[in-house]
Amino acid sequence: MVEQGENLLQAAISAGVRVYASCGGAGTCGTCKVKIESGEVATTRTEKLSDEEYQQGIRQACQSRVMTNLSVYVLVESRLEKVVLASEQKRVSQVLASGWRFKPPLSKYFLELSPPTAEDNLSDLSRLLRGMRRRYNLSHLSVDFYVLKKLARALRKGKWKVTVTTLVTASKPRAGEERRPRVINIEPGDSREKHYSLAFDIGTTTICGQLLELNRGKIVAEHIAYNGQISYGNDVIARINFSQKPGGLKKLQKATVATMNDVIEELLATSRVDAKHIGHLMVAGNTTMTQILLGLETKYIRLAPYTPLANFFPPVEAASLGIKLDKHVHLYTFPAVASYVGGDIVSGVIGAGIHQRKTLTFFMDIGTNGEIVIGNSDWMVTASCSAGPAFEGGGVKHGIVASEGAIEDFDIDHASLEPKIDTIGGKKPKGICGSGLINIIAGLLEARVIGQNGKFHRTLPTKRIRKGSDGYEYVLSWAKETQIGRDIVVTEVDIDNLMRAKAAMFAGFQTLSKSVGIECRDFEQVIIAGAFGNNINIEKAITIGLLPDLPVDRFIFVGNGSLLGARLTSFSTDLLDDARRVAQMMTNIELSESADFMNNYIAALFLPHTNAREFPTVSKRLAKISK
Amino acid sequence: MVEQGENLLQAAISAGVRVYASCGGAGTCGTCKVKIESGEVATTRTEKLSDEEYQQGIRQACQSRVMTNLSVYVLVESRLEKVVLASEQKRVSQVLASGWRFKPPLSKYFLELSPPTAEDNLSDLSRLLRGMRRRYNLSHLSVDFYVLKKLARALRKGKWKVTVTTLVTASKPRAGEERRPRVINIEPGDSREKHYSLAFDIGTTTICGQLLELNRGKIVAEHIAYNGQISYGNDVIARINFSQKPGGLKKLQKATVATMNDVIEELLATSRVDAKHIGHLMVAGNTTMTQILLGLETKYIRLAPYTPLANFFPPVEAASLGIKLDKHVHLYTFPAVASYVGGDIVSGVIGAGIHQRKTLTFFMDIGTNGEIVIGNSDWMVTASCSAGPAFEGGGVKHGIVASEGAIEDFDIDHASLEPKIDTIGGKKPKGICGSGLINIIAGLLEARVIGQNGKFHRTLPTKRIRKGSDGYEYVLSWAKETQIGRDIVVTEVDIDNLMRAKAAMFAGFQTLSKSVGIECRDFEQVIIAGAFGNNINIEKAITIGLLPDLPVDRFIFVGNGSLLGARLTSFSTDLLDDARRVAQMMTNIELSESADFMNNYIAALFLPHTNAREFPTVSKRLAKISK
Repeated sequence: MVEQGENLLQAAISAGVRVYASCGGAGTCGTCKVKIESGEVATTRTEKLSDEEYQQGIRQACQSRVMTNLSVYVLVESRLEKVVLASEQKRVSQVLASGWRFKPPLSKYFLELSPPTAEDNLSDLSRLLRGMRRRYNLSHLSVDFYVLKKLARALRKGKWKVTVTTLVTASKPRAGEERRPRVINIEPGDSREKHYSLAFDIGTTTICGQLLELNRGKIVAEHIAYNGQISYGNDVIARINFSQKPGGLKKLQKATVATMNDVIEELLATSRVDAKHIGHLMVAGNTTMTQILLGLETKYIRLAPYTPLANFFPPVEAASLGIKLDKHVHLYTFPAVASYVGGDIVSGVIGAGIHQRKTLTFFMDIGTNGEIVIGNSDWMVTASCSAGPAFEGGGVKHGIVASEGAIEDFDIDHASLEPKIDTIGGKKPKGICGSGLINIIAGLLEARVIGQNGKFHRTLPTKRIRKGSDGYEYVLSWAKETQIGRDIVVTEVDIDNLMRAKAAMFAGFQTLSKSVGIECRDFEQVIIAGAFGNNINIEKAITIGLLPDLPVDRFIFVGNGSLLGARLTSFSTDLLDDARRVAQMMTNIELSESADFMNNYIAALFLPHTNAREFPTVSKRLAKISK
Repeated sequence: MVEQGENLLQAAISAGVRVYASCGGAGTCGTCKVKIESGEVATTRTEKLSDEEYQQGIRQACQSRVMTNLSVYVLVESRLEKVVLASEQKRVSQVLASGWRFKPPLSKYFLELSPPTAEDNLSDLSRLLRGMRRRYNLSHLSVDFYVLKKLARALRKGKWKVTVTTLVTASKPRAGEERRPRVINIEPGDSREKHYSLAFDIGTTTICGQLLELNRGKIVAEHIAYNGQISYGNDVIARINFSQKPGGLKKLQKATVATMNDVIEELLATSRVDAKHIGHLMVAGNTTMTQILLGLETKYIRLAPYTPLANFFPPVEAASLGIKLDKHVHLYTFPAVASYVGGDIVSGVIGAGIHQRKTLTFFMDIGTNGEIVIGNSDWMVTASCSAGPAFEGGGVKHGIVASEGAIEDFDIDHASLEPKIDTIGGKKPKGICGSGLINIIAGLLEARVIGQNGKFHRTLPTKRIRKGSDGYEYVLSWAKETQIGRDIVVTEVDIDNLMRAKAAMFAGFQTLSKSVGIECRDFEQVIIAGAFGNNINIEKAITIGLLPDLPVDRFIFVGNGSLLGARLTSFSTDLLDDARRVAQMMTNIELSESADFMNNYIAALFLPHTNAREFPTVSKRLAKISK
């Protein structure tokens, strides 16, 4: 039931309708448009609604209050679709970390104990610990209180044959550190074959989980879903702002946990594994997502000087956060480096094995918040570049998230200037996704439809270039060919937004390289992580100046590096040690405070770059075309 | 509201009426007698009600169901009074442990941190830990998750001046053991002056708590109350039986926690200390009380071969048990030795300092379950003797717990055989407490009113000796002189019950001494612990053969040894280490399995003992009297 006066976006979220709301309901992004088919809403109109839209009954859901019974149509481009997420599952991440021992932090041990007698009436716990010492040479175990609750019953139900689960948080502890394995569970009988854990990547946009089998080190199932927080804002800043509202943090936390529970349910259903056989939960996420998941204050992440609450979090009982797993399951979160370089990046670095090799590597995770790492096994520097939402379709007139009908590839006839477009799923176009926009801009540049400044050559003989409400634009698809019944265009404003985004990433890379005195050509390897990164065309991304001008064979995609690292550490305690070490060895450089970065950024607001020497092969090619 | 058909004892408990019910409502003890003044109950009559009582409307509450509205009078002797408990507070325990360092496990540290800047934007937690390292040279601290919840706010509210509370569980950790102090709390500003903890003895009958000030090592307040479990049974066996009923364990646990909360409330009210400044809770109790408090299965304590669930329990969050303290407060329970030698005895041994001296010591805690320890700093053996409830007034016709009006001292004119009695508080007599019974029997023995077999000389010229419903008895007080309006007598059955109790204690002592090859006269020190022990007259207890026949100056009372140990370990982490060591070094001897014990027990069913050489001075004195 919806109350009169309730916010329409909130009402939709409560009803489980997936509406995109990139600004989190502030009214500034215009992505949550709906059409009121019948009934009345009270709306505050913003500049995001054209006169034409307003006349058609289109409203921003976040700016509307429900006044009567309603029939509402969610515009195609405002919907959160499932399709691409599903296809993404099929991509297998390329495992780059190597040479690690298969030795999961979670272990199961089977014990056959002698029953107590008058001569041997040790306490139940002492008997258990004696068994672990004698049979497995394991002394000095610590024991969770929860185990004591189950102990007497499990021993007798199993007729003194039991399976003990232990957990370690470090392989080689440092001075003063807890080195004792913790006994976290006891089960009657021999349950060693039922030995599972979960690895999760908690992304700002999506949450991806894997069910892992720990005896053989296999992925049993994988599932991905939109992070339930998405309707509260598109990026971490919007989420942090929302968390400051009364009850906001709690709502965000609940939304994340609800999504995690959905993913877990799906993983268990498809694999027919019983929840009680899951013994551990390894989570990688950025600093904001990690703190929200744990229910911790996020305010100071976004206030200068940008301090996270902590870099290391103690493991917590998963059930205490609302996660539907047995009480013995601990949730371990990857350590973070800084407010905007989180556990997801540490996890990605571990997954990519950068810490294991002397190879000079440039690691990048491209997204709204792009993170970059430069280094090798000896040292690493890192930075976060606030690229804005353009890569995910935000701030782009017809930008949408990658889903069916999104334009993902583009070619242009250099003579007729007519486009050839490909959409995800081969459906009629409904908008442009981030990787599509890169390809469009590269194509327009190479066809000299736009100049290196990103502006249209206005005298070209095609009616596809015209002046629209947002200035000059190029029509990619005429209204009748689309799903949305309107012309799909790319505007100068869109191009400008993407140029700002790519400039931020490249300037970050340059600033970081210079800070350690390394030239672009010295990089032996470029690792691209992230779902978005996985979809981009390397050559075209080099053409527009997003990626450095290096031979294509130096680029490697790892897909979801954060999830990869979470999985590998679930299999190897050594890598868990490495994660701590890497988080501590990474030096974070705060770009927002760097004059050098600002200079580099301004120089990068050109296609591919103001300084042609930074992109020698692209410059040569463009020069050849223009002759 | 009471339902029709509800058990009257349960209804009384629910209504907060304190009724004594030594057998836990089984109907076998007859201590819960009430008089139905109006209304109807449905009662199952047992042999515990005389015809006269039945006619007067007296019923056993536990055997009665409520049928109509009732007016019920709780018989004077069935009431749980508060008086003696209050006076007991005034006795100061004699501290015997010595040479310990004042270094509480709980510490407070004040930090003045520098606020974060762009050049120094460490995470809040790293800043805190750096402060602890720089200012106090404390590295490798572990941090409770709860602290992270408060951290951001506390730092900013205190303007980067905060007080950090740490807890250690061991001073000198053993191999592989957690040695890192845990950071358990953070408060804005300087709160070092507000630094308190609690020490508790959880007894089967009473719960005693002390509020401790940790900067100066002082007792701020002390309070004692009946353990809320008392109405569920008088001894641990009755409680274990009750815990096996559906919901029984939960009820017992709640009852204990409710009493603890009452005691805490009283301690805070009298001392005007705020609950939030309490940082720790140290608890000593017998094995059953400890396991019930923690909500753990107790069943196997009472089933051969008598295995406790564990000897060591990890600290638990006090609030998770229902204790009304802040979430950062951990509850530490003393380690136990065996099912019937619990943390209270380990605590008593630590409090008495037995582990610190070469002095050959006999330590005894006299009660329903009497525990004895023999040893010194090098070795210790221990045993538990099931003495029965006679020392606490159970199984004694007019036996009551020590409270106002209880006969506590007795003398008899050897010529007229007229008694001279003293009662607690000088009130009219209403019954006999345990220590009173010892004095009565000693007096009757020395006056040759009873023989060494505990039977009355039936030909003596006094109407005070007569045959009653339970056989021969001696009238201590005529009906008109009493509170209860009936003659108060001591019967042969009562004497027999006390003889069994003292025989069990003494036989335990003999069996233990013999097992290590030590003669009675070799003991340099006898330490008597426990509230009951504190009240007994040493010479008279030797006369009846409860205590060994040693010079009176070798006996020392320590009062509540369990509470004493809990307090001292709250002041000294070294003693906490000692407690673990002592629990492990004590060898438990299971007397119920020992043929030697049975022989000693039968020999001890005589006043003072079948073997006169065991009690040379008493035998000499009795021989002199009889001449």
